Amino acid sequence: MLITGTFLDEITADIPHQNWGEKEWDREFATMKMAGIDTVIMIRCGNQRFITYPSEYLMEKRGAYRPPLDLVDIFLRLADKYSIDFYFGLYDGGCMRKAWFVGSLMSEVDDCKFVAEEVWKRYGHHKSFKGWYLNHEIGIGDGELYILDERTEYDRIIGNFVKEISGGLPTIISPYISGSKAQANPLDITAHDKLWNRVLSTLQGAVDIVAFQDGHCEYDELEDYIKVNKALADKYGMTSWTNCESFDRDMPIRFLPIKWEKMRLKLEAAEKTGIEKAITFEFSHFMSPHSMYSSAHGLFDRYMEYREEVLKRS
Amino acid sequence: MLITGTFLDEITADIPHQNWGEKEWDREFATMKMAGIDTVIMIRCGNQRFITYPSEYLMEKRGAYRPPLDLVDIFLRLADKYSIDFYFGLYDGGCMRKAWFVGSLMSEVDDCKFVAEEVWKRYGHHKSFKGWYLNHEIGIGDGELYILDERTEYDRIIGNFVKEISGGLPTIISPYISGSKAQANPLDITAHDKLWNRVLSTLQGAVDIVAFQDGHCEYDELEDYIKVNKALADKYGMTSWTNCESFDRDMPIRFLPIKWEKMRLKLEAAEKTGIEKAITFEFSHFMSPHSMYSSAHGLFDRYMEYREEVLKRS
Amino acid sequence: MLITGTFLDEITADIPHQNWGEKEWDREFATMKMAGIDTVIMIRCGNQRFITYPSEYLMEKRGAYRPPLDLVDIFLRLADKYSIDFYFGLYDGGCMRKAWFVGSLMSEVDDCKFVAEEVWKRYGHHKSFKGWYLNHEIGIGDGELYILDERTEYDRIIGNFVKEISGGLPTIISPYISGSKAQANPLDITAHDKLWNRVLSTLQGAVDIVAFQDGHCEYDELEDYIKVNKALADKYGMTSWTNCESFDRDMPIRFLPIKWEKMRLKLEAAEKTGIEKAITFEFSHFMSPHSMYSSAHGLFDRYMEYREEVLKRS
Repeated sequence: MLITGTFLDEITADIPHQNWGEKEWDREFATMKMAGIDTVIMIRCGNQRFITYPSEYLMEKRGAYRPPLDLVDIFLRLADKYSIDFYFGLYDGGCMRKAWFVGSLMSEVDDCKFVAEEVWKRYGHHKSFKGWYLNHEIGIGDGELYILDERTEYDRIIGNFVKEISGGLPTIISPYISGSKAQANPLDITAHDKLWNRVLSTLQGAVDIVAFQDGHCEYDELEDYIKVNKALADKYGMTSWTNCESFDRDMPIRFLPIKWEKMRLKLEAAEKTGIEKAITFEFSHFMSPHSMYSSAHGLFDRYMEYREEVLKRS
Repeated sequence: MLITGTFLDEITADIPHQNWGEKEWDREFATMKMAGIDTVIMIRCGNQRFITYPSEYLMEKRGAYRPPLDLVDIFLRLADKYSIDFYFGLYDGGCMRKAWFVGSLMSEVDDCKFVAEEVWKRYGHHKSFKGWYLNHEIGIGDGELYILDERTEYDRIIGNFVKEISGGLPTIISPYISGSKAQANPLDITAHDKLWNRVLSTLQGAVDIVAFQDGHCEYDELEDYIKVNKALADKYGMTSWTNCESFDRDMPIRFLPIKWEKMRLKLEAAEKTGIEKAITFEFSHFMSPHSMYSSAHGLFDRYMEYREEVLKRS
Repeated sequence: MLITGTFLDEITADIPHQNWGEKEWDREFATMKMAGIDTVIMIRCGNQRFITYPSEYLMEKRGAYRPPLDLVDIFLRLADKYSIDFYFGLYDGGCMRKAWFVGSLMSEVDDCKFVAEEVWKRYGHHKSFKGWYLNHEIGIGDGELYILDERTEYDRIIGNFVKEISGGLPTIISPYISGSKAQANPLDITAHDKLWNRVLSTLQGAVDIVAFQDGHCEYDELEDYIKVNKALADKYGMTSWTNCESFDRDMPIRFLPIKWEKMRLKLEAAEKTGIEKAITFEFSHFMSPHSMYSSAHGLFDRYMEYREEVLKRS
């Protein structure tokens, strides 16, 4: 199982900025292509007042700052140039990062729809614009089912909306399981199955691709979780990817590149399940030879050796 | 508005050491010069037992360790060589970093005066020795006005003293505002105005340059704060600079280089106020092509592109 | 006093992975050799389920993951190649990292013995296999003497065992003092002397080399602690080394390379005591020109300049 997709972590929420311009992003796309990546997913187009493209709507209505670069334009031109599929991550109004109260997420629905329409009108013609990423990472971390239900409902509404305006382009979610490494409310396989049956049944038709994050359970429990994830996705007509995280959740500095051994264990677990595709969060900080973290350069070298082995085998 | 000054963060308090010797500092001064920097401010000449130059006084009286390099000598020779103005940051006895009690800061006055005299005698002949930096970063963060008053009084005494011994060389302070990002006691513009009127009226005559840190308020509130700061400084015959922080206060790893977009927003806010000069904390860790943090290299490239634009415009 | 030994921090517990393969380790051993290092100490051969070599025992009995590389094999071949002494760090079952209860460490004795036998059989023929490292870092940090006693007893049992199976190869421990920088229970010199007399008297015969960590006291207290350590070691027929830590315990990001000045202070303190050898935790992250942390490159340059001075003097 090889990594063929990655998030692009712009605008960042908690990952340090690399301060790249177009030249550096061009070099990065060339490297990704060379490493076998055919899919990029912009994690969000804006986080509260910081945005990736000059959205008249967000600048006027939400006090967003005018960005120095139009990253969406750059990413789409580079995706066109390198024949890489681009998925557009929607707007994050910050509700899930700040004080939470019931119903508050729904206040972001209109912003999210406006942004999607604005974006589709402006950038929808790019041949690499292949779909949408519903950017709230849902899960039962908060413990309360009614909160997860609200978030699911939000994704259902938005998923249906963006598909409708774009002629049915596919939508992705990347939720998290609550495995043994979850900070609260770890769910065993049976409880996980039951919970996500509830969520995915709601999302049927609104979500096309489910790419669970693979970092919240023990390495040897992962295969079982992915099997359940895939069975549920199959049941609701969805495609299953795995989001093979390339940062290390086990270390005190949060976050630095993962130990290659751990990433390989996770790829091998995924391979056994027949899942369709592996993406990663994310290449440019944690796996790239151009990352600000030098240990990412080592991870890149190890991964590329492994990739050669795998390609030779097949 | 361009960055034309920077702190030199030696001796460090909370920023990791880069372990540079004279050769590396020479390269750094050459880079700073090339980037348009005409002013460097050594943030402090000593922090408790670690000191930048072999001060007989501090080694004998305060158990300071003999430093392997005389950084003050190196910095002044390089400042002479590159025609850069050097401001000398005074001694930090550690009182503000350890247990605080009323009156304790005053116990450091004598050390600070002795050090200033020792330094002026030893290094005052350098043509680049242009002034003094009063190194305690004052503000109302602690919440108690009598504490801020004590710190202000300390700066008044020391500011007057160092001006007197050096034939009136100018003094700088770099206080912090308590804006909406302050951890405690955020002050609105009116309260900020009132507080700093009190502080700056006390410091009149003892302080020549006020360079508020720009990191504790929202990006779009900054312009208003700087306007108040400038009006107050004007009122008391002081010069206004802005300390445009080049590290990111919004990220979980404290601290890494700032996103260029944010720095540009802050420079543009400052530009609108007619403030005289922008300095940064600080070039060598957060903006330098030689920084230990690679994302600083990106910030440098983005800043230099911006600088070229600005210079072309004017 | 120069650094002539270093830990190899694989498998790591809290230090980020550099993701090096054999090529990178070969380059690293060459650099260490060039820098005067004649001794390497693998800090542990496994930490719970992550292991350095494919131990049939640990994979079968303890669910350890099959490692992608046999690091023990690589390290020993490189140690042979570069004529560097290798000490093997024993297995860490995780008891001291997880919930602690009286007697629990003893449950790891059998695993540790099995692993030692397996390793000796498989790798004992290497000419560079010079001894064993008892990997639990003991000290009174937890405050309770009966806990330290249990850990000491564990080391006594294991130390005797590994010496017996290997024809008496020497064993190392690297405990910590509880000096003024200890988080709890700082001990003054007299109390330190009394405590470690108790510990080392128990370990007589089971431990050959004691290399106290040097990071938990003030820089000017270190000489006195090392003198006590050396006197105690002499009394019980042990050899004294100092573990001169090359990471900085005084900074908020835990951990980055130490300021060279501090490392030099610690080496000079050790030099005055007549101690036999200085090792470091550890070269590859904190002092190496190949470290993921660029400030380690600066530390390497400063250290190498110092080394040249010292060699010239002698």
